[in-house]
Amino acid sequence: MDRRPVLDKGWVQLEEQMGGDAAVVRAARICYQSEARSSEDDMRLIRRLMAADPKHNTVFEHAAFRFGVKCPLFVARQWMRHRICTFNEMSLRYCLADREYYLPKEKQPGLEAYKQHMEASFDLYERLIQDGWRRERARGVLGTAVYTQFIWTVNAWSLMNWLQKRLDISAQWEHRQYAEAVLGIFLEVMPVTAAAFKELVLKR
Amino acid sequence: MDRRPVLDKGWVQLEEQMGGDAAVVRAARICYQSEARSSEDDMRLIRRLMAADPKHNTVFEHAAFRFGVKCPLFVARQWMRHRICTFNEMSLRYCLADREYYLPKEKQPGLEAYKQHMEASFDLYERLIQDGWRRERARGVLGTAVYTQFIWTVNAWSLMNWLQKRLDISAQWEHRQYAEAVLGIFLEVMPVTAAAFKELVLKR
Amino acid sequence: MDRRPVLDKGWVQLEEQMGGDAAVVRAARICYQSEARSSEDDMRLIRRLMAADPKHNTVFEHAAFRFGVKCPLFVARQWMRHRICTFNEMSLRYCLADREYYLPKEKQPGLEAYKQHMEASFDLYERLIQDGWRRERARGVLGTAVYTQFIWTVNAWSLMNWLQKRLDISAQWEHRQYAEAVLGIFLEVMPVTAAAFKELVLKR
Amino acid sequence: MDRRPVLDKGWVQLEEQMGGDAAVVRAARICYQSEARSSEDDMRLIRRLMAADPKHNTVFEHAAFRFGVKCPLFVARQWMRHRICTFNEMSLRYCLADREYYLPKEKQPGLEAYKQHMEASFDLYERLIQDGWRRERARGVLGTAVYTQFIWTVNAWSLMNWLQKRLDISAQWEHRQYAEAVLGIFLEVMPVTAAAFKELVLKR
Repeated sequence: MDRRPVLDKGWVQLEEQMGGDAAVVRAARICYQSEARSSEDDMRLIRRLMAADPKHNTVFEHAAFRFGVKCPLFVARQWMRHRICTFNEMSLRYCLADREYYLPKEKQPGLEAYKQHMEASFDLYERLIQDGWRRERARGVLGTAVYTQFIWTVNAWSLMNWLQKRLDISAQWEHRQYAEAVLGIFLEVMPVTAAAFKELVLKR
Repeated sequence: MDRRPVLDKGWVQLEEQMGGDAAVVRAARICYQSEARSSEDDMRLIRRLMAADPKHNTVFEHAAFRFGVKCPLFVARQWMRHRICTFNEMSLRYCLADREYYLPKEKQPGLEAYKQHMEASFDLYERLIQDGWRRERARGVLGTAVYTQFIWTVNAWSLMNWLQKRLDISAQWEHRQYAEAVLGIFLEVMPVTAAAFKELVLKR
Repeated sequence: MDRRPVLDKGWVQLEEQMGGDAAVVRAARICYQSEARSSEDDMRLIRRLMAADPKHNTVFEHAAFRFGVKCPLFVARQWMRHRICTFNEMSLRYCLADREYYLPKEKQPGLEAYKQHMEASFDLYERLIQDGWRRERARGVLGTAVYTQFIWTVNAWSLMNWLQKRLDISAQWEHRQYAEAVLGIFLEVMPVTAAAFKELVLKR
Repeated sequence: MDRRPVLDKGWVQLEEQMGGDAAVVRAARICYQSEARSSEDDMRLIRRLMAADPKHNTVFEHAAFRFGVKCPLFVARQWMRHRICTFNEMSLRYCLADREYYLPKEKQPGLEAYKQHMEASFDLYERLIQDGWRRERARGVLGTAVYTQFIWTVNAWSLMNWLQKRLDISAQWEHRQYAEAVLGIFLEVMPVTAAAFKELVLKR
């Protein structure tokens, strides 16, 4: 699947998936040893599971996704607070940081000073490394507006938790743009579950 | 993939997988932003990650598997103590138990009494349900030698933890048979990682 | 704290705890670097956190409990499907099972046959062990109505998830009795959080 | 317990704990239904559990700790990759950042430029907020050398995993200073387990 652009230089990309809607149905039907007579039965089953309270989380955990992500560090920091999933991130202990940072689109006062400062921080970063600082210490001057990359493996239940938190109006605007892009992918590749989630949980 | 028979009436079956050896390499290479020049580079990388101490667990968590399992309840009870994974099991609150129980192969004294008792427990179970007992209460008379079924979704790191515990000489013999069958599948579908695990961790 | 009797021979007991309501307040106030002017501020804060959607789970995870539990095996099997917590259970691989099983209070038809069967299963269990069967295999004849014991360490957020699932009308009646007993303890030892949970989540 | 200073402006502090060595013994003894005849029996038991392979993790999970921590953001970022535990951090979405950043002790070339840059980043940060930037966006100019604060609740098993990773020679030097401070506390408050861990796992 193609990269979906997010913010000025970021993106999300679905790299691989397992299970999908069929895995939810498989998991639910083993509990009840039931069989579907039609694909509409399966759709109704998924909707019923999504609406259930208390939650039927495990049936949604058999579907899994691996995403590639490029985002500002301040977004990555929030993202990685999510625990029921796996991250591997480009390491600034081993790699040199690219000169890439988040530049807001809006013409805000102070934007020029912001740009100059971010450029200056990369200048200093490179100079410190030339001066013999360890990369992992030199990176301390780089603001959290710099871009980072990681891969993220997450099951569908945990993905929905993350989406609910990060699509919420209280979430940081930049993070929400990533959540919207991921929701778009989710709707494409796990359509019955994602549509039920959008309607019954997000109430969109 | 076909069902692999285990014990007298059980089996394990790989239903679906994601990632495999390639996902481990993908995860490790994003950290270091490195590229392989040959597939031998990748093999060496996986072996190095497997041997590392402290452990590099996350790189192995991007590969995932869903298994179907049929096993005695006493094996399932131990299996489900494993927490970093997802189970969905046939429910004896909603389904009627099949008249299937584990029968050891060896001619042991007491085996005939064991058989008679297990049969009697199913007779009683059925009678109690006819008498109006709730299924979930009636099942209390069924011994843990009865067979159950479940699906299990687990990432490669968590799978290796389970394998290490359940292949150990101290593990219950019946459980070990399942672990051996799963190890056989693991070696087929994630060959580089599984071979490194077998040699470097299991020391076989 | 004393053991609270549950069912005919079971109990739950709070053995130790950490944090309580104060830990929730501590965790929330570090986020906002705020201070309470009165204990009513703290109560309002906890209620607001409990009502929040999306959920503020982490603030409740700094409070933790260790319980001792004695319950039928079929209750323990469901209980241990809960994953964000720690269990250690009496092992029938190493210990001999006590002759104790769940006896429903109600005079149901079949109850006498149930009793005789459970007694017979213990007779057989003991005979098989005398015949040289391994304990872990002989226990296969014992029904899931036998009692087991375990200790359970769980944080307040995970406890509330369990309570919500196991207090639900759809939960097995016998398990619900344990959930009611634990809820009673929770209301005593973490009163502000537990009362907010009862009112805002359980809607009791 | 007092704050232990780490680096130039950071610290760690044990705020609360539960269980300790006694909880490990309690957990192990319920499995085997055994009793100690002396406190030396308990010490031997803990050492045996620590040395076991495969690992006996659950028995160590009944002991838990809550720490308060002040550290540079780049340390916090690594720390929070740890998943089997709970963090609550001071939020720069809701709070204004204090003008505090990590200053290496060693006289390195470039240190003066580093200082000026960090000061300039706080100047810009404050100006952007005055210009009407949202705090959560303005913080993007602050380098990861700035200090943050959080509380951390973690069980003893997970703590030892973290210690092993962060005390390793390959860990970032700054992070290791925090791990050393936490190890010192661990040795004081859970002496038998921590000493066994130090000798048998860390091989110090």
